[in-house]
Amino acid sequence: MKSRKLKMGMVGGGLTGFIGAIHLRAALMENKIELVCGCFSSKPEVSKESGRFYNLPDNRIYSSYQEMFAREIALPEEERMDFVVIVTPNNHHFEPAMLALDNGMHVVVDKPMTFSLEEAKILQQKVTETGLILAVTHVYAGYPAVKEMKTRITAGELGKLRRIYVEYPQGWLAERIEIESGNNAGWRTDPKLSGKAGCMGDIGTHAWHLCEYISGLKVKEMCAELNTFVPGRPIDDDGTAMMRMEQGVKALLAASQIAIGNANNISIRVYGEKGSLKWVQEDPNKLFFNTSHTPEQIIYIGGDYPYLSQRAQWNIRTPGGHPEGFIEAFANIYRNFALTVAAHKAGEHPTAEMLDFPDVNDGVRGMQFIETIVKAGWNDDTKWVSWVE
Amino acid sequence: MKSRKLKMGMVGGGLTGFIGAIHLRAALMENKIELVCGCFSSKPEVSKESGRFYNLPDNRIYSSYQEMFAREIALPEEERMDFVVIVTPNNHHFEPAMLALDNGMHVVVDKPMTFSLEEAKILQQKVTETGLILAVTHVYAGYPAVKEMKTRITAGELGKLRRIYVEYPQGWLAERIEIESGNNAGWRTDPKLSGKAGCMGDIGTHAWHLCEYISGLKVKEMCAELNTFVPGRPIDDDGTAMMRMEQGVKALLAASQIAIGNANNISIRVYGEKGSLKWVQEDPNKLFFNTSHTPEQIIYIGGDYPYLSQRAQWNIRTPGGHPEGFIEAFANIYRNFALTVAAHKAGEHPTAEMLDFPDVNDGVRGMQFIETIVKAGWNDDTKWVSWVE
Amino acid sequence: MKSRKLKMGMVGGGLTGFIGAIHLRAALMENKIELVCGCFSSKPEVSKESGRFYNLPDNRIYSSYQEMFAREIALPEEERMDFVVIVTPNNHHFEPAMLALDNGMHVVVDKPMTFSLEEAKILQQKVTETGLILAVTHVYAGYPAVKEMKTRITAGELGKLRRIYVEYPQGWLAERIEIESGNNAGWRTDPKLSGKAGCMGDIGTHAWHLCEYISGLKVKEMCAELNTFVPGRPIDDDGTAMMRMEQGVKALLAASQIAIGNANNISIRVYGEKGSLKWVQEDPNKLFFNTSHTPEQIIYIGGDYPYLSQRAQWNIRTPGGHPEGFIEAFANIYRNFALTVAAHKAGEHPTAEMLDFPDVNDGVRGMQFIETIVKAGWNDDTKWVSWVE
Amino acid sequence: MKSRKLKMGMVGGGLTGFIGAIHLRAALMENKIELVCGCFSSKPEVSKESGRFYNLPDNRIYSSYQEMFAREIALPEEERMDFVVIVTPNNHHFEPAMLALDNGMHVVVDKPMTFSLEEAKILQQKVTETGLILAVTHVYAGYPAVKEMKTRITAGELGKLRRIYVEYPQGWLAERIEIESGNNAGWRTDPKLSGKAGCMGDIGTHAWHLCEYISGLKVKEMCAELNTFVPGRPIDDDGTAMMRMEQGVKALLAASQIAIGNANNISIRVYGEKGSLKWVQEDPNKLFFNTSHTPEQIIYIGGDYPYLSQRAQWNIRTPGGHPEGFIEAFANIYRNFALTVAAHKAGEHPTAEMLDFPDVNDGVRGMQFIETIVKAGWNDDTKWVSWVE
Repeated sequence: MKSRKLKMGMVGGGLTGFIGAIHLRAALMENKIELVCGCFSSKPEVSKESGRFYNLPDNRIYSSYQEMFAREIALPEEERMDFVVIVTPNNHHFEPAMLALDNGMHVVVDKPMTFSLEEAKILQQKVTETGLILAVTHVYAGYPAVKEMKTRITAGELGKLRRIYVEYPQGWLAERIEIESGNNAGWRTDPKLSGKAGCMGDIGTHAWHLCEYISGLKVKEMCAELNTFVPGRPIDDDGTAMMRMEQGVKALLAASQIAIGNANNISIRVYGEKGSLKWVQEDPNKLFFNTSHTPEQIIYIGGDYPYLSQRAQWNIRTPGGHPEGFIEAFANIYRNFALTVAAHKAGEHPTAEMLDFPDVNDGVRGMQFIETIVKAGWNDDTKWVSWVE
Repeated sequence: MKSRKLKMGMVGGGLTGFIGAIHLRAALMENKIELVCGCFSSKPEVSKESGRFYNLPDNRIYSSYQEMFAREIALPEEERMDFVVIVTPNNHHFEPAMLALDNGMHVVVDKPMTFSLEEAKILQQKVTETGLILAVTHVYAGYPAVKEMKTRITAGELGKLRRIYVEYPQGWLAERIEIESGNNAGWRTDPKLSGKAGCMGDIGTHAWHLCEYISGLKVKEMCAELNTFVPGRPIDDDGTAMMRMEQGVKALLAASQIAIGNANNISIRVYGEKGSLKWVQEDPNKLFFNTSHTPEQIIYIGGDYPYLSQRAQWNIRTPGGHPEGFIEAFANIYRNFALTVAAHKAGEHPTAEMLDFPDVNDGVRGMQFIETIVKAGWNDDTKWVSWVE
Repeated sequence: MKSRKLKMGMVGGGLTGFIGAIHLRAALMENKIELVCGCFSSKPEVSKESGRFYNLPDNRIYSSYQEMFAREIALPEEERMDFVVIVTPNNHHFEPAMLALDNGMHVVVDKPMTFSLEEAKILQQKVTETGLILAVTHVYAGYPAVKEMKTRITAGELGKLRRIYVEYPQGWLAERIEIESGNNAGWRTDPKLSGKAGCMGDIGTHAWHLCEYISGLKVKEMCAELNTFVPGRPIDDDGTAMMRMEQGVKALLAASQIAIGNANNISIRVYGEKGSLKWVQEDPNKLFFNTSHTPEQIIYIGGDYPYLSQRAQWNIRTPGGHPEGFIEAFANIYRNFALTVAAHKAGEHPTAEMLDFPDVNDGVRGMQFIETIVKAGWNDDTKWVSWVE
Repeated sequence: MKSRKLKMGMVGGGLTGFIGAIHLRAALMENKIELVCGCFSSKPEVSKESGRFYNLPDNRIYSSYQEMFAREIALPEEERMDFVVIVTPNNHHFEPAMLALDNGMHVVVDKPMTFSLEEAKILQQKVTETGLILAVTHVYAGYPAVKEMKTRITAGELGKLRRIYVEYPQGWLAERIEIESGNNAGWRTDPKLSGKAGCMGDIGTHAWHLCEYISGLKVKEMCAELNTFVPGRPIDDDGTAMMRMEQGVKALLAASQIAIGNANNISIRVYGEKGSLKWVQEDPNKLFFNTSHTPEQIIYIGGDYPYLSQRAQWNIRTPGGHPEGFIEAFANIYRNFALTVAAHKAGEHPTAEMLDFPDVNDGVRGMQFIETIVKAGWNDDTKWVSWVE
């Protein structure tokens, strides 16, 4: 009997990076997805070694993604991969994603979705045409506390929004480590591989996405400054942006990769006319909620807390006090994606909870964010730059 | 081709509790284990529904564990389960564990290992006789920060130890919720199902285990007081113990289930002649390290931190700042257990890192802890009670 | 015109210690007290130097407290000291306090109030006979957050109390520094100067007082263990006690001076049938308040917070977010004492807020605490020891 | 015999505000200053009541500051005030300060120093001409942790600086409370009384000063946006600025008075090539210190910590773990000012530690900050505005 599990193929994600194994664990955790094949590296021997480590049979470990799609599509439908996850450098997102869609396979792709905005728009059109599902792993949107925050803001608990602070400081690129091997800095600081932005492409996009996802509002204009602090680096490693959003909301975005002492310290604070909410990723299972003239509330995340919204509960696995983390946030994106794909296969409508993952439209806006902040951030003359469509 | 993955069967863990799904995710995450069968509840319809939810075919969903072992052992070796995980109330740990071992299957069992110390000793003897592997899920020993703490203490970074504070406050039993349905309180507060101790069996054992695991020292004597604060409850829901350990170390253990505002707030602080270390489970990816006359150090947990020990690194999945949590701690126990079983099957010696999971001897000492603290804690006459062997 | 300020004389508190200057700042801050004279050390030259540093004229700097009282009483009433503050080692509290009272002067004395319980009772009788005012500086009772906590507990916000954890870990005596000069360890670890208890006299008394003050309940029985971890030290430097209080409340007290990494980390957590409150001195301007099934509340301390009680507000100086600390807690004791003395001088009744400072009865109970814990803590045979009256 | 204490007169600071009493406590705490006279309000009856509460004789309580200076200068030198502290709304700083200097009296004035930059420059010239001492109470520069941070940065512990984040969020003006009485919002939101800026004048100046004080670098250019979120308010209540400082350092300043849930949450983070330091005012007695590849250090503030600099130690009153706060930070400014004045009177040179308080030059730069941020912040056309001299 055929397993009901979705069958996943992987492009990239070999043992030499860390993010592939994270995606894999997140995908597997819910017992709704199984890894059936992959091309884990552009180097065949690394791909082979990685696939074997992941317990794949040799005949499902491929040397190129082109080979993978060609060979998989030839398998009986109950054996072949249902979707691909793409965890390569940015310049290798577009082609395998297009090829997957052309072969009728769904796609999960790491962020930023593509190398350029042009690619993003083509991909968006392809998704529309094929009706297939594409998820972009803006992982922070997968945290249950973020879901709770979004739900409360949507429900008006803060009143009309006014001010947002979102930031993502890191310190790991404070030195020019990209000229050494053995780390993940190389392609991220090379514009030919990562695209127009460095810091802003890698982590600024996360901060921007969190800001729009939680508030439900879009950025309209931006005044920014990008910086390269490390000599010799050909791309931004730091930057700030004042952002004007819909409904008069003002947001301040700061991202840096030279902020020594910060690992992945993304946080967001949202202030409205009636109250505020704050979330910090490195301590992810709580929200700080304030209204005027009352004690501060710490809203803890846990399956047994009756005060949490349905949207948050749907994305929680443990009772209070048993921390969930980064892999579970990824797993929420994979689980919701898998349920949506399953509904699609069954000809059913996915629920709003199932559809709650970043999709191709988020991916396009992410590329527009990069275009806009690069345009605004390296320009001393024009103060306010409109969102680049 | 046969998958290299270990095949897991499950006893208990149906959808009505939460802990079964936690075990399952932890087991699956590393792609080294697959769920192949289970008897998820003593109610056949719950078992059936749970198994289907877990994507099992109907012919591998059983109505009793006796049926499960009988049917599985009849399957070809490459199909049948390799080990069982037992996540039932305490009074149903012993029989399925014994039956599994008798059928040549390895065992993972939740803590406390058995209903009584007598059962524990029989199980210990059976494990010895069969040479099979048994793991007890004292989950807190699975956290990488705990591994780091143990490693540093073993290496003498604190000097000779003096004083330990370990505590596990919870608040969920502050009211007599066990008389209502729909929660996990029922069997935990019923001595016929949970054994001699309530609070001390459920969470006191965790605190005790953390204390002995991290320090590498054993408790010798105990002076204790157990309490039942909630009227009508026939078992302890709170207690404290002063414990005299090997080498003159004094430990203070406090556990409570009526401490409103605490979810699973287990923490441990260890003081030696030269320094101290502190860990708090609800914020699990850091250690506080102090020596005299120097600033406090926060030792963060992350795969990219060069100052962490090999033992900790072995149990880390993410780079710094991307929190791991409760499920990953469980996953470390499952992963190390699985690697040990695989080595066993291959006739190889597992490494020290693989063997780093709580085993049947921890299980026996856990039952002795319960015996000792019950003897000491309800007794106003004798101050110091020796460890019950 | 005579100033309306109270005139203070000082015994002890010279420049070689730190606590004298703390008392002085606390006394002066509210402009209700002025320093007019003192005998700051048993060494005349240190007394002289200290007095001059404190801007006293030479004729009000004395070489002995006997001389001070004799000379001051001979001054016109509008010039002479109104009260004395005694900040000497414990063995020199009793005599100057008695002499002050005999001369009609009020007294502020550091804790523990005396060297022995016998002295304490004599002093209590003398206070009663003279009708004069005596304050004991159990400083932690002076924090506004502690006042808020007491008020809420008294008002029943936690329901009937069940369990208290109070602890005071320090690390500064982890080595035998008392054999060197230049620190405050000498007399504190010498039973001839400090009394029967070391750690428990110096800081255990603070923890005990906080426990009784906040709960409004008295300790009835104690089961304890005292320890001396540092070789050669003739007195306890660590200990724990399980305490049975009125109304069935169980308290756990832990104090240590060998807990490296802790400075003055006194904290208290109180659990009742309906909720809990927690306070930590090193972060003193907040309370953590929990009831079942609701988010945690952080109750911040600030003059502009409408949800705070009158008792707390009376003891607050700054708006929220501008931290008050240790000196202000002392200042609350001095301010309330001064207002009580002023009312006494004016023949008026002080208000309940004015009388809210530790008095001679707290001092006597503090000495009984020391007697009880020493009796219980060095005794392996008797489990429960009744409070020593 | 004349007391060696400095004699203080007060302008403003009556009982209806809170800041006067804060200044008074800070001034008195060290026993180096005494309050001898004052004009506490423009309303004579409030001035009278306040002066009596502060224990002044009626003949030293004045109805106007003009009367105060005229009457005091007529007193014998050993009786009359030595300096004035001015704690009035901003539009009443300049005249009493000028009059004090004209009468040979030193000055302490709250920030911002004056109503306009023009006034500030005149005052600066007057101070230069008279050789008298003027302090501006940028209180956050008085915290010992800030002193430690400045010292370490000056010593190069962070390497060359790159990036600074400084912010001061408050929430108390989220509603238009200035139209009600009984709060301090009225004059702060009225441009006729507070000057060109609201939020930026009241708290933005603090953030800016902290940034320049700690880094030792000056702002050169600014790109800013000011906002008024509360309808009807005629002045900014929120704003952000990207600031280019000397040596290529980029600073981001955010201040807000509509950020509900924040009281006085000023914080600063400074990143250099080698490390970083972070300080948060609401938990003021610690610094977070990071270098690459090492555990985080928490540098606690306490008189007994050998790793602290001389500059910090000079400004510490308590041992570690006994928190100092806002009033002590003020007291450091008063103490250093008083010692400088005393040296001036004695014809001696004050030490560098004594001179470590914000002076008239800080005051002028503070007014330039306001000019610059108002010019930049309400202008959508020009991106970068040069510092207004």
